[in-house]
Amino acid sequence: MNKIEHLGIAVENLETSSRLFELLLGNAPYKQEDVESEGVSTLFFNIGESKVELLKATNEQSPISKFLAKKGPGFHHVAFAVSDIRSEMNRLRDAGFELLNDEPKPGADNKLICFLHPRSTGGLLVELCQDAPL
Amino acid sequence: MNKIEHLGIAVENLETSSRLFELLLGNAPYKQEDVESEGVSTLFFNIGESKVELLKATNEQSPISKFLAKKGPGFHHVAFAVSDIRSEMNRLRDAGFELLNDEPKPGADNKLICFLHPRSTGGLLVELCQDAPL
Repeated sequence: MNKIEHLGIAVENLETSSRLFELLLGNAPYKQEDVESEGVSTLFFNIGESKVELLKATNEQSPISKFLAKKGPGFHHVAFAVSDIRSEMNRLRDAGFELLNDEPKPGADNKLICFLHPRSTGGLLVELCQDAPL
Repeated sequence: MNKIEHLGIAVENLETSSRLFELLLGNAPYKQEDVESEGVSTLFFNIGESKVELLKATNEQSPISKFLAKKGPGFHHVAFAVSDIRSEMNRLRDAGFELLNDEPKPGADNKLICFLHPRSTGGLLVELCQDAPL
């Protein structure tokens, strides 16, 4: 794991939360991106070498809809940057972590990603992120 | 805000969680420190320019005891590094954020810290951290 790539934060309203996090971080968002396959609309802020990613559900089947209904807005996941996602997935699977997908899948911000189930990580939804080949 | 200083993660058992996060991050912890005033025992891992801080309660009045009873183990707070904590506290108070302490207080890892109430930050417990003068 190279660094914290981003913190994913579940929000109910992207416009309101955008203003709130711009005030909090003292920094305007630099990108808005929809990820249709995940049912989310995202907004990114830079913070040092990391990012804050706001996540709003775009449909009722979105994992973010389910999360908000159960837990309300706030921390959703932490993503760690990795150089070789397949090798990290193999290492972590062998170490007993539970991967939520067998193969890396495309995520926001031109990444290949894989999630680890919180029940194998002490309650933390963890994402692995590798820059996707262009 | 300069960077993500650390992620605070509430754990039930420091030894078990230390092994788990060492496996997850591929990196051994570098410091263990008790903060008696907060009723916590902490363990730190480096990850890029940031840290992961595991937090175990050392008594039943600890905020971590209450958090674990209510929400179980997992993400507890995110800390952002600031250069001048008093100036950031004033800026954020004026912007409508709710500060949990009026003056900076000593935290783990030789920091001056201040927490923001999650009800003013979209559900996220936020800590400000400034390196304390030696």
